[in-house]
Amino acid sequence: MVPEPAVASGVSGQAATGLGRPAWVGILGYVGLLVAGVLLFFAIRLYGEGLVAPTAPTDARPVGQVVSGQVDVVGHVIATLAAVIGCGYLLGRVFRYFGQPPVIGEVVAGILLGPSLLGSVAPEWAHTLIPSEAMDSRGQVAAALKAISQLGVILYMFLVGLELNTARLAGRAHAAVAVSHTSIIVPFVLGAALALGLYPIYSHSGVPFTSFALFMGSAMAITAFPILARILTDRGLDKTELGEIALGCAAADDVSAWCLLALVVGVAQSQLSNALWVAGGAVAFIAFMFLVMRPLLKFASRRWDEGTGPLPPLAVSGTYFAILFCSLATEKIGIHAVFGAFLLGAVIPHRSRIAQEFSTRLKEPATVLLLPAFFAYTGMRTQINLVGGLNNWLWCAAIILVAVAGKFGGTLFAARLNGLSWRDSAALGTLMNTRGLMELIVLNIGLDLGVISPTLFAMMVVMALFTTATTAPVLYWLIPPKKSA
Amino acid sequence: MVPEPAVASGVSGQAATGLGRPAWVGILGYVGLLVAGVLLFFAIRLYGEGLVAPTAPTDARPVGQVVSGQVDVVGHVIATLAAVIGCGYLLGRVFRYFGQPPVIGEVVAGILLGPSLLGSVAPEWAHTLIPSEAMDSRGQVAAALKAISQLGVILYMFLVGLELNTARLAGRAHAAVAVSHTSIIVPFVLGAALALGLYPIYSHSGVPFTSFALFMGSAMAITAFPILARILTDRGLDKTELGEIALGCAAADDVSAWCLLALVVGVAQSQLSNALWVAGGAVAFIAFMFLVMRPLLKFASRRWDEGTGPLPPLAVSGTYFAILFCSLATEKIGIHAVFGAFLLGAVIPHRSRIAQEFSTRLKEPATVLLLPAFFAYTGMRTQINLVGGLNNWLWCAAIILVAVAGKFGGTLFAARLNGLSWRDSAALGTLMNTRGLMELIVLNIGLDLGVISPTLFAMMVVMALFTTATTAPVLYWLIPPKKSA
Repeated sequence: MVPEPAVASGVSGQAATGLGRPAWVGILGYVGLLVAGVLLFFAIRLYGEGLVAPTAPTDARPVGQVVSGQVDVVGHVIATLAAVIGCGYLLGRVFRYFGQPPVIGEVVAGILLGPSLLGSVAPEWAHTLIPSEAMDSRGQVAAALKAISQLGVILYMFLVGLELNTARLAGRAHAAVAVSHTSIIVPFVLGAALALGLYPIYSHSGVPFTSFALFMGSAMAITAFPILARILTDRGLDKTELGEIALGCAAADDVSAWCLLALVVGVAQSQLSNALWVAGGAVAFIAFMFLVMRPLLKFASRRWDEGTGPLPPLAVSGTYFAILFCSLATEKIGIHAVFGAFLLGAVIPHRSRIAQEFSTRLKEPATVLLLPAFFAYTGMRTQINLVGGLNNWLWCAAIILVAVAGKFGGTLFAARLNGLSWRDSAALGTLMNTRGLMELIVLNIGLDLGVISPTLFAMMVVMALFTTATTAPVLYWLIPPKKSA
Repeated sequence: MVPEPAVASGVSGQAATGLGRPAWVGILGYVGLLVAGVLLFFAIRLYGEGLVAPTAPTDARPVGQVVSGQVDVVGHVIATLAAVIGCGYLLGRVFRYFGQPPVIGEVVAGILLGPSLLGSVAPEWAHTLIPSEAMDSRGQVAAALKAISQLGVILYMFLVGLELNTARLAGRAHAAVAVSHTSIIVPFVLGAALALGLYPIYSHSGVPFTSFALFMGSAMAITAFPILARILTDRGLDKTELGEIALGCAAADDVSAWCLLALVVGVAQSQLSNALWVAGGAVAFIAFMFLVMRPLLKFASRRWDEGTGPLPPLAVSGTYFAILFCSLATEKIGIHAVFGAFLLGAVIPHRSRIAQEFSTRLKEPATVLLLPAFFAYTGMRTQINLVGGLNNWLWCAAIILVAVAGKFGGTLFAARLNGLSWRDSAALGTLMNTRGLMELIVLNIGLDLGVISPTLFAMMVVMALFTTATTAPVLYWLIPPKKSA
């Protein structure tokens, strides 16, 4: 159909190309072909323009036009991710001068781009990122952002589980375990006690006190294992005795706190009638993970460890499938999706190739690309301006005080009683006080469940930021860099 | 507040732990602490249950309950991803016996889980994955799935751009370029000619013939560079002369086809008044990428190449930011988001550390985890049952015939004229006929724009599957494995 132009001549010239033909023949042929193609297209077009197509259905939208009332979900999501990644990086650079871990920059970026700052200073700019409820009337942008953020959080928790060295955890001295449990139980009880004060003000009659107190207790008991590990590594403390104890305690804390939270979610979500189902399901799931998945993974990973080259597709697809499946299972049981992903990471043998490949490969896409959706989503829900007036700020200060007293104080006390020096005990307490991203995950769950109000959510976000931001500088002051080397 | 139990005694026994205390003291202390904690919590609870919280606001939802009419977006998205990953892997295993690349399994899984099979056989099962429009009345699940799928496609196109060796492209013999252009122009003209027959039946009066013909032409001209490269590598042909020519042609095809498609989208989306803006914006963007981004990236990556250890945060965050930014820029200009990501990948120096790290690290999360959302989304939109009746299937056959005639025929013809043997020409034609994932991306753009109808979309999906699935077996027949070694 297309006329084949000059290339047909087989003459071989000086400027011969790989296929033995002078270059100008090729160029001429190409130009001829292009011209012929364009001419043919216009001929077709000339004829085709006269064709009559069936009448447009009544619901047909004009070609290429966005239907009015429909929001460009993908555009908003991409813009939001780009904004949080960009601002988060820049803020992180600034905060690094104050010894802050990068996560602080990203959390603050999310909050600043949300209703707290950008939304009140330049709403039209904020709406190019996250449209107002009037524009996003069907909540599609929020839903998409939430889905991506949850995907990021699930992958992140899986990675946290992978980093957890269960062997080291089991080998810990009982005393360190005692420190760890004190550092959970003290803030938990203090948090529950604080709930007595907060409940009549910031809750409402639809929320049972038990759920509220359980949640406040668990939220206070959280330690951000990954950020703590990062601070220790940054400071070169991870191989010291203090570092080992801190890592062990934080890991034990993480496991306990997530179990506690699973309980909270179970209690909050279930009517008394199906509370047993939740408890039974949780026990069955944990048993399945340890009695079936763990041996299975040990067996499979031993086979994969022998191979070289990339992991087989079964290992890769299988792991991703398992992450999603475990998340879904715990979600359906009534304990949160993150618990399943975390537990799966924890039962994968720590030194297997699968753990190492996923740690290195998944880390950047999960934390740098997908987690910003979580920071944006958290920022979108954080309305700092709700914490207005002296009274609210005093309560916010009380929350911070109780959080620090529980975690820092509890750990300091237990460590001191277990024979650590004052300085080391204080350092351990400071480290355990890091709440970071983990706390935000827990707070979002609480807000989703309706256990805490947006005002309390904003206060707790401030507390999480405060406790995380103080860790590195206080540690720097307690153990100056020269001594830690 | 918490009574500190037995651990206070400092006796050192035989079963001493790391901190010099007998084990039973620790255990006793732990149990005591736990009991004290639980008792304290119940005391708090007893008192707290009597507290009165402010009355619930009228719009308060019961704690932990999903509001009726609201759909569990995250649950549906995770379930869908898990289903496509799982089924895609299993189908891929089955299809591998027939020499098929894994992508076929995933595409088919997406279609089978959509309305074409699961939706008509077991709708209630299908709705646990993708809820019906009645259940997902606000389109939130569809929006979330679309956002994730677009993110996957953008990352994928970035990776395709990274794999593109522009140096090799520039070094190609002119004859190979002539083959490549013939293999674009012939199917493009044939596709446009076929549009003459399809337009009066499958289009409607709201779609201008020019947009329709341009789209059909571009859709026919697509070659799936990554799948072609994978088939060549699988067969050990990538270092042969045939393999080199095929890779060069396919890369040139990709660039040309995406430029063509950018034109199509521009034409379809713009009123005549802002067509100039689109064209101007596209030229400005391409110029920016080559004149500003490329030298900048060369300079930066030279610095990063010298370093060892992980890439600096600026390189990682910066690259992710750039991917999103370029996608957004091309989307706003009016050519599709994938074009920006692809172009960014192409201008990053091919052998730089940044290209290599991103190729290895991003590949699995992007293709194994996020792209399944694209397969699910495509499957959700593919309604094979729309292609009912002999007439429709005959048109579907005609589309396949024209697609093969254009791509396989055009390549065979041009390669033969350029002095390749019949066998090699046929092999080259077969390889260029692979359309795979690329075609699906293009088809989804067409459906989004409203240029093609769901019926034509389904037909074109069948065509894409057919041309992709025939490549490996035909190649196997043309060049049996023993000869290719």
